[in-house]
Amino acid sequence: MTGMQDLNTFTLAELAEKLDARVQGEGSQPITGLAALQDAGPNDLTFLANRQYRKLLTGTRAGGVLLTEADAADFSGNALVVADPYLAYARISHHFDPRPRPQPGIHPSAVIADTAIIDPTASIAAGVVVEADAVVGANVTLGAHCFVGERCRIGAGSWLAPRVTLYHDVRMGERAVIQSGAVVGGEGFGFASSQGQWHKIAQIGGVLIGDDVEIGANTTIDRGALSDTVIGNGVKLDNQIQIAHNVQIGDHTAMAACVGISGSTRIGRHCMIAGGVGMVGHIEICDNVFVSGMTMVTRSITEPGAYSSGTAMQTATEWKKSAARIRQLDTLAKRIQQLEKQLSAVTPAPRDSSES
Amino acid sequence: MTGMQDLNTFTLAELAEKLDARVQGEGSQPITGLAALQDAGPNDLTFLANRQYRKLLTGTRAGGVLLTEADAADFSGNALVVADPYLAYARISHHFDPRPRPQPGIHPSAVIADTAIIDPTASIAAGVVVEADAVVGANVTLGAHCFVGERCRIGAGSWLAPRVTLYHDVRMGERAVIQSGAVVGGEGFGFASSQGQWHKIAQIGGVLIGDDVEIGANTTIDRGALSDTVIGNGVKLDNQIQIAHNVQIGDHTAMAACVGISGSTRIGRHCMIAGGVGMVGHIEICDNVFVSGMTMVTRSITEPGAYSSGTAMQTATEWKKSAARIRQLDTLAKRIQQLEKQLSAVTPAPRDSSES
Amino acid sequence: MTGMQDLNTFTLAELAEKLDARVQGEGSQPITGLAALQDAGPNDLTFLANRQYRKLLTGTRAGGVLLTEADAADFSGNALVVADPYLAYARISHHFDPRPRPQPGIHPSAVIADTAIIDPTASIAAGVVVEADAVVGANVTLGAHCFVGERCRIGAGSWLAPRVTLYHDVRMGERAVIQSGAVVGGEGFGFASSQGQWHKIAQIGGVLIGDDVEIGANTTIDRGALSDTVIGNGVKLDNQIQIAHNVQIGDHTAMAACVGISGSTRIGRHCMIAGGVGMVGHIEICDNVFVSGMTMVTRSITEPGAYSSGTAMQTATEWKKSAARIRQLDTLAKRIQQLEKQLSAVTPAPRDSSES
Repeated sequence: MTGMQDLNTFTLAELAEKLDARVQGEGSQPITGLAALQDAGPNDLTFLANRQYRKLLTGTRAGGVLLTEADAADFSGNALVVADPYLAYARISHHFDPRPRPQPGIHPSAVIADTAIIDPTASIAAGVVVEADAVVGANVTLGAHCFVGERCRIGAGSWLAPRVTLYHDVRMGERAVIQSGAVVGGEGFGFASSQGQWHKIAQIGGVLIGDDVEIGANTTIDRGALSDTVIGNGVKLDNQIQIAHNVQIGDHTAMAACVGISGSTRIGRHCMIAGGVGMVGHIEICDNVFVSGMTMVTRSITEPGAYSSGTAMQTATEWKKSAARIRQLDTLAKRIQQLEKQLSAVTPAPRDSSES
Repeated sequence: MTGMQDLNTFTLAELAEKLDARVQGEGSQPITGLAALQDAGPNDLTFLANRQYRKLLTGTRAGGVLLTEADAADFSGNALVVADPYLAYARISHHFDPRPRPQPGIHPSAVIADTAIIDPTASIAAGVVVEADAVVGANVTLGAHCFVGERCRIGAGSWLAPRVTLYHDVRMGERAVIQSGAVVGGEGFGFASSQGQWHKIAQIGGVLIGDDVEIGANTTIDRGALSDTVIGNGVKLDNQIQIAHNVQIGDHTAMAACVGISGSTRIGRHCMIAGGVGMVGHIEICDNVFVSGMTMVTRSITEPGAYSSGTAMQTATEWKKSAARIRQLDTLAKRIQQLEKQLSAVTPAPRDSSES
Repeated sequence: MTGMQDLNTFTLAELAEKLDARVQGEGSQPITGLAALQDAGPNDLTFLANRQYRKLLTGTRAGGVLLTEADAADFSGNALVVADPYLAYARISHHFDPRPRPQPGIHPSAVIADTAIIDPTASIAAGVVVEADAVVGANVTLGAHCFVGERCRIGAGSWLAPRVTLYHDVRMGERAVIQSGAVVGGEGFGFASSQGQWHKIAQIGGVLIGDDVEIGANTTIDRGALSDTVIGNGVKLDNQIQIAHNVQIGDHTAMAACVGISGSTRIGRHCMIAGGVGMVGHIEICDNVFVSGMTMVTRSITEPGAYSSGTAMQTATEWKKSAARIRQLDTLAKRIQQLEKQLSAVTPAPRDSSES
């Protein structure tokens, strides 16, 4: 769509081999990019992930469509038949990614400490700073202006976009992806109060990050106060998330943008936290919890399931009335109680009380 | 006020010419700065934008006041008479801006790819990195440590503060203003789920930005998943805003700080989104919508107007009662229904039911 | 815990001297690190700050415990007896901080303007840019890629982590701590509207910061529109906070992460603002106010105390009912009123109405 996707050309048959897919139609069809069903041109591959959009199939101009066996049966165009079209799209998308792939080597403007260990296959861009005793693994890319503090370890195959900051003693596994502006290992918000003033507590823990973790742009993960802040394997964090000191996040949990997690809270595995959620500190969230957007989580969650808070949007006029009534709620509830008391003096309750 | 505003001196008459204003009083009065009505000294220009503050006019020590014809009629001091004093203040403010104006040229520490095209009138500060095939237009300023990815285009007259990151394939119009820490073109949050694990989807779209756009400090705008994320002409984004992949924002829409917009949501023209608002993905907001602060927008808006959600602040003691009552609301509503049923058995409803 | 705390070794007696504490037990016990009560090993110092955890004392393997006189009386292990164990922990923690302490001097890759004044005891890391007429005080550390704009002043003993941006005319007192990604002095969100378009207002004020201020990672503090934005002495700001133009924050006020304060709002001294709070502009918060997490503050607060808004988390199923009922609240309230009217026609109110 943007003129940059014709960097790579494959035939449908070549893509089928990468995906272990069955070709239906012309295997020789050249594919130069990916696009949505309604936007795809004759050299684009597309996909049908949601059967709700099935009617768009008929009109598509795509050179090929990723389809399930069931959907392919009715389709006369070129298709790659797979078990999970959306997953297949995810896998194949990387072959059409115009993201620059830098060559191994260290840019002359980078500043690397003598005791840092940089794998010869790593790519270190302009202005990067790597401090003493840091270890940068095989095939790691450090984008321009990245800062890697003392004793950090970055596992093989990790990609740090330009301008990522790792304070000292941040250790991460393999295949990490960190977007620009992320700060890992900053000093958490720890102060002792005495006579109306705040006294800083040194944050002497580190950050421990598993394999296959993604950290979004301008997200911040504080180092531990005493022990480490811990991010599990496969955790995916979107942009502008705040993870306070000593938080622990279980494997394969995902968080959308603008979430804030307060200190020492522990989140289980396979949780999904939607955008703008806030959690207080020192609570525990069990595995398999879904929290909807902008929910305020003020207590532990011990049962898997979906949780929410907040009020629905209204016109401002209606909302002003609702907001005023909420402030009267306690009084309203007492007025109901009073009515019930009065009414029971006049008449016995009807037998059919199933609704109450 | 800060000692830096005496860099520029103008007479009232000179300023009048810039603004196409009428001078009332001493045109030769020297003006060295701008200040609020109550703070202005004898060499400051001030303005009366809100007639509510008219009583401050009498006491002002300002060397000159931007006034409407109506307000100037009663004022005995020096004035510049204009149709819109606040707009006139906006226009004249740039003549007193102490922001450094760098000279054209490329700092020797900048790292510019051979195939990048930098206009000779552009100013490229220390530590800037510009990658292959990027195009930097006339009179563009790139502050220190800016990163401009492959194939980016920055239109004439744009100003990027220090430390702005543009990933590859970000194209912006003329006169853009981007504050420090902004990240444009980061990889959106796209993953396919399979057997409890997340598989990354390459984000192969770009970001397309119109003319006269402002992007605030530490704001993040993700690149598109397939097609581009689009920011219209004249859009103004405050600090720490998150714009997810494939969002579209219409011309002249403004957003205050800390807003989060989820993926593929389309926002119309001339909208105003107040601070801390969150929007779910895949919805549409029509033109001329105002959303008040911290509103949770969970559905499309099809009618222009003002929209809100949230509860009003109370003392913590009162709030605890309200919060408890909200959780009982469904029960309370059913108790009201029950009361109505019981009462109707005792007495017919009064005729005057206009209030219900 | 992370293997880096054995950089420093002290005996309990040496630590007692630093804290003006009384040693109980073996003063010769070597201490190499700090840890929580349940995690501490035989060479760790720990503390009992919350008497709720007193039962953990018996089982601790710690080499020493910071205790009050009262708690020490029952404890048979090694202890340092102090008036306030948590404060003592805060003070002693800095002796075990593995944060690198750079040497004085200017890295050859730093770009320092001729008219900037750098104290010879200051440490200026790789890639730092200091612009004209800036003043950097004694024992200041500027981490890699910091940007210090024209005429900035940084007081003695301040520590800026890597990649902090100060625009021009930011003046801060002594012992500031600023975490990575913070942006101080960005241009506030000021526009005049005319005929559906936004016209930028130059932001000509600066930022004035007191002594002993901490600013968190990726926090943004905008410069003033006309006069300065002001941050008082001892103010502590956590990560990802947004402070708009001309906000004033009183001495010793603390804010947790993700707070947003709109323009020209004034906050008193000794306030505590919890995470995710939003405040509208042009209001005043008096001294000694506590605002709980995610509260929407839409009006001034004139009485010290605790304030809140928001709704409590429920299961998504229950929440959907509550949210629907909130939208019906005005109607429900009118139905109660109607019931009261009807009922009063049937029966006189009971005398005992104290509950209503």
